[in-house]
Amino acid sequence: MAFFALNLLHSGVPLSMLCAVIGLVFAIVLIRIVIRASAGNERMREISGAVQEGAKAYLNRQVVTISVIAVIIFILLFVFKDHPTAIGFVVGAFCSLSAGFIGMRVAVIANVRTTQAATTSLLRALRMAFNGGAVTGLLVVGLALLAVSIFYTLADKIVGHDLAIRSLVGLALGASLISVFARLGGGIYTKAADVGADLVGKIEQGFEEDDPRNPATIADNVGDNVGDCAGMAADVFETYAVSLIGAILVAALTLGGNSAAIVYPFVLGGISVLGAILGVLFVNVANGKPAAVLMGGVLTSAIVSAILFWPATHYLFPTGLTIAGALRTPTQLYFASVIGLVMTAVVVAITNYYTSMRYAPVQKIARASETGHATNIIAGLAVGQHATALPVGFIGIAILLSFHFAGLYGIAIAVMSMLSMAGIIISLDSFGPITDNAGGIAVMSNLPKEVRAVTDQLDAVGNTMKAVTKGYAIASAGLAALVLFGSYVEELKAHNPAFAQFTFSLTEPKVIIGLFLGGLLPFIFTAFSMDAVGKAAGAVVREVRRQLKAKPGILTGQDTPEYGTCVDIVTKAALREMIVPALLPIIFVVAAAVIKPLGPVVLGGLLVGTIVTGLFVAIAMTSGGGAWDNAKKFIEEGNLGGKGSFAHQAAVTGDTVGDPYKDTAGPAINPMIKVANIVAILIIPIFF
Amino acid sequence: MAFFALNLLHSGVPLSMLCAVIGLVFAIVLIRIVIRASAGNERMREISGAVQEGAKAYLNRQVVTISVIAVIIFILLFVFKDHPTAIGFVVGAFCSLSAGFIGMRVAVIANVRTTQAATTSLLRALRMAFNGGAVTGLLVVGLALLAVSIFYTLADKIVGHDLAIRSLVGLALGASLISVFARLGGGIYTKAADVGADLVGKIEQGFEEDDPRNPATIADNVGDNVGDCAGMAADVFETYAVSLIGAILVAALTLGGNSAAIVYPFVLGGISVLGAILGVLFVNVANGKPAAVLMGGVLTSAIVSAILFWPATHYLFPTGLTIAGALRTPTQLYFASVIGLVMTAVVVAITNYYTSMRYAPVQKIARASETGHATNIIAGLAVGQHATALPVGFIGIAILLSFHFAGLYGIAIAVMSMLSMAGIIISLDSFGPITDNAGGIAVMSNLPKEVRAVTDQLDAVGNTMKAVTKGYAIASAGLAALVLFGSYVEELKAHNPAFAQFTFSLTEPKVIIGLFLGGLLPFIFTAFSMDAVGKAAGAVVREVRRQLKAKPGILTGQDTPEYGTCVDIVTKAALREMIVPALLPIIFVVAAAVIKPLGPVVLGGLLVGTIVTGLFVAIAMTSGGGAWDNAKKFIEEGNLGGKGSFAHQAAVTGDTVGDPYKDTAGPAINPMIKVANIVAILIIPIFF
Repeated sequence: MAFFALNLLHSGVPLSMLCAVIGLVFAIVLIRIVIRASAGNERMREISGAVQEGAKAYLNRQVVTISVIAVIIFILLFVFKDHPTAIGFVVGAFCSLSAGFIGMRVAVIANVRTTQAATTSLLRALRMAFNGGAVTGLLVVGLALLAVSIFYTLADKIVGHDLAIRSLVGLALGASLISVFARLGGGIYTKAADVGADLVGKIEQGFEEDDPRNPATIADNVGDNVGDCAGMAADVFETYAVSLIGAILVAALTLGGNSAAIVYPFVLGGISVLGAILGVLFVNVANGKPAAVLMGGVLTSAIVSAILFWPATHYLFPTGLTIAGALRTPTQLYFASVIGLVMTAVVVAITNYYTSMRYAPVQKIARASETGHATNIIAGLAVGQHATALPVGFIGIAILLSFHFAGLYGIAIAVMSMLSMAGIIISLDSFGPITDNAGGIAVMSNLPKEVRAVTDQLDAVGNTMKAVTKGYAIASAGLAALVLFGSYVEELKAHNPAFAQFTFSLTEPKVIIGLFLGGLLPFIFTAFSMDAVGKAAGAVVREVRRQLKAKPGILTGQDTPEYGTCVDIVTKAALREMIVPALLPIIFVVAAAVIKPLGPVVLGGLLVGTIVTGLFVAIAMTSGGGAWDNAKKFIEEGNLGGKGSFAHQAAVTGDTVGDPYKDTAGPAINPMIKVANIVAILIIPIFF
Repeated sequence: MAFFALNLLHSGVPLSMLCAVIGLVFAIVLIRIVIRASAGNERMREISGAVQEGAKAYLNRQVVTISVIAVIIFILLFVFKDHPTAIGFVVGAFCSLSAGFIGMRVAVIANVRTTQAATTSLLRALRMAFNGGAVTGLLVVGLALLAVSIFYTLADKIVGHDLAIRSLVGLALGASLISVFARLGGGIYTKAADVGADLVGKIEQGFEEDDPRNPATIADNVGDNVGDCAGMAADVFETYAVSLIGAILVAALTLGGNSAAIVYPFVLGGISVLGAILGVLFVNVANGKPAAVLMGGVLTSAIVSAILFWPATHYLFPTGLTIAGALRTPTQLYFASVIGLVMTAVVVAITNYYTSMRYAPVQKIARASETGHATNIIAGLAVGQHATALPVGFIGIAILLSFHFAGLYGIAIAVMSMLSMAGIIISLDSFGPITDNAGGIAVMSNLPKEVRAVTDQLDAVGNTMKAVTKGYAIASAGLAALVLFGSYVEELKAHNPAFAQFTFSLTEPKVIIGLFLGGLLPFIFTAFSMDAVGKAAGAVVREVRRQLKAKPGILTGQDTPEYGTCVDIVTKAALREMIVPALLPIIFVVAAAVIKPLGPVVLGGLLVGTIVTGLFVAIAMTSGGGAWDNAKKFIEEGNLGGKGSFAHQAAVTGDTVGDPYKDTAGPAINPMIKVANIVAILIIPIFF
């Protein structure tokens, strides 16, 4: 036992690297299988090529824009902080960008092949779309695990243990900041194009979704790739890396840098790569309804992880671990890690309930559409808010239990184990945009209606999956941010002895003011994001109207629309509009630090305030948006009058309002909260 | 100097009673002037009579429903707490109900006379509507000040000082609880009728607002009276009484019951009654644009109060007051009280900016309507969220400054001085529904279009005023609730020595869990409220459709609609649907107290969490709703295509979504937050 323990202690990080590599290799094998499948006829390949080109062009320009800001921050870190932190920032930023590119590249390969598979069978299309998602999932998780472990190992050797740990915060900032930009830029792009296309196309002209006569339709499909795929991949990379780093920080700051405690999160991550691979294999052999097959994959992955966590925990902590003066048994630590897995299942199940068309909430919105646009909106807003209750309740339980088992470290472990599921969870998330695009390609290539029916069916499942993974991402982000806040407090105490005994008490007015200021951040962050979508969508609407007026032949199919101008307009608008909201968390935190009567106490309250309201706003937005989307799909399936009915028109309005909710503003809160917390940790030695 | 001081110390409470009585007498004089004005022709009196009857019938049934719950709580208090508290509860509940009745009665007298005045001139109509509001304002404030001072004086004599102070909490609970019910019941009523009438009337049938062919039109006008007038009056009574009681509690709990500190809030209240009277007189003699005249009234009132606060503070605290171990000068205390007046002006100005059609935010929503329903909604949601930033920022500054001047007592004094402005502020708030109703009567009595044009112009001002006063109410509620939270902590420490040194630290997981649970409360409270409106509105829509189908002659004017059935449907729905959300704050607080692993620490976090998210949700809803309403009015004035255009249709959708936001869910958060805090204080000796 002791031998194994010693072994895992020293080999834990290398072993987790090995697992990451196995995951990457498996992903490469999977992508080869995907690529070998047929990409359909020439028309399909042509459309897919146009989408791919638009997506690449956008991402390249996004990289240029973000790089300017990244270079400025790199210089600031290089000058005012230390060099390893600045280098960590670059590594995090680079990997986060790469994750986005991977997500986009894989998706554009998989979508046209999913269309082709849909011409043969539902199950084949399901597997094709899922495997495309799984490639992204495994590549992103493998990359995150590998990046953090290599950086940590090298930094540890070169600049020593202490600085290595601190420089990880730089890596976290790089990952988070890029992720905010990717989420916002991609989210504004995808939803401006989508909303713009819908407003003129569906509502004014009565086009179907993805009608090739709609000048904004290519931009809409490009958006799915740059927002839902690239943005999401960057986001999950960030969430994974930050959760891992958060756990390491807590181990370093509160457990005196206990080696086993630092190695443990790496080991959890490594094990779950194996779990994710088995989950992917399950989906590729199982039969059944799409949603059930996908959930089976998640369950397989969770069970494998839960089983393997047990020996790993006991090998690593043969005699337990002393936390806050009390010895915690290996079993207690194991329980903390299992909480993360259970939380994943719970959040997935809850969000599924609120956003799947099989349950009451979505059907309530659909019925409210019968009385008009306004009642649809009111019902959707209410569903989104209702959907916050259970996740927040369970987050409370998770905090209580994991803290009970192993203090702040227990929470960090729960978060890491929750995030260790990311490999399989992203597979689900990417599934949505891939099937969405597949459907678009089917319509634009004039494939038979049955093909679109297959992709529509998968798309509805995909909508729920997207909402589910966003619920998962934001719940884990809330917990991860709490861990970061804990690190902020510890770091502040360690840095400035004046705060050694300080408690951030609710009876302290500065804490309350901080809670208010922090609580404000998600509200105006999302307000700016929605404004951005509204503005960019308005530009698309005007352009589409202009084209339809200038070339009346477009409507009859005699003229071809200029897809390129719409792509160009959205690209520029997205890049311009993402800057202000993305910088808000940095501005708030630095302002709280710099403005005289505020300072570290207000900043502490601010961090918690952002987590509290951020969690609610994000869940309400992502769940509400998903529910609106599926309420529309529910009616389109022929319920309550079906397509073209009054109820359907109202449901389209709800879906359109839900677009920026669920794909721009809501999911961007996740990295935004963490940027705020990470920046706060970084600036402690500079200002306090 | 010392002689005056001694005098004011002993005569302060009786003097404030005298001021309250002067206010009441002035209100009675004013109502006589209003009544003497012409109530128009027979048709107008008939319609006004129908509205009045519906409103009375509703309020009577609401009293019955609420009484059942009030009796249960009275019995619980009588058995588990002390008798004075139970009696205080009855007094608070009774006065809050009475305030609601007063608000409704005065409004139905004033509205028809405003219609009549509108046939002569804009200024006369303005004054008539304002004076109707002023009667409510002065009666409510006078009643609140009188009720608290008489109850306190009597209880002090009969059961002694300590118990008298504690039993005031019972009075606060009675006031707040009734207020939640009145706000919710009235809010559901008014908006279900309004939304229902609009959905079928305006959108399906193309009726004008208040078209007598619309079977829901009387219910809609009844709603304005039971929701906006009765609900609001109960709400402001509650806010006033609770702010006064909060200040007394802080003086008793943290200043050892210093007499001058207890008398001070009474004196501030008394002085402001005089200020309000002068403000009302100003509006009755000034000339100019409606908004400017009304703002002049507020300013007059604030300046008079600010001037009179100075000598009063110095007489009462000739040598200052020792707070938290430091002597505060009379000037410092005076500054704390002036902060409340300044905050009133600031919040009024900010909300005016976000909701008046003269500024960018409303016009942005109007322009977004040109691209459809969805962009209107997105823009409105964004404006609501943006509107939270400045108020919250200024609330932060107010907390910082007033705490700096006089600790928690300083915050309490700032709140009380803010609330002392209520007399003039309600005059503005009531102004809105009175003009709204006046317009309805004009249309239904077939008066010339010019009359409706006058009332429409006043109605737009009224919309802004309503949003403004809601911003004021919620900002003051946030501050008042913080004072109550402070009292909760002090009471807990005094009651249970185990908590004597306890700090509600953000690093304590239970505090975080409390923040999450409390943060949840406003989200699901408003979700339930909106559901309630949606359900009740759906019932109205079905009934209106049924009538129009059964009697096609209604459309041509040959048949008269059955107004009564709509009134009946909304009445029943409102009373049924208000119960669950109204009880939520009690359920949350008691659950946190009773469920084992939670307890007093989680409860403390819960109280603050509710305040934090409640403030944002309430401001976003009330400002967003007001902005949507005026964006519609902006288009109806002939901008962007005017009435009947595509933009107008989209703006009607936004207005309809805004209805439950601004008149049901949003304003009900105000008393809800306080119910949570008061219940928490009350149950300390029972559970902890």
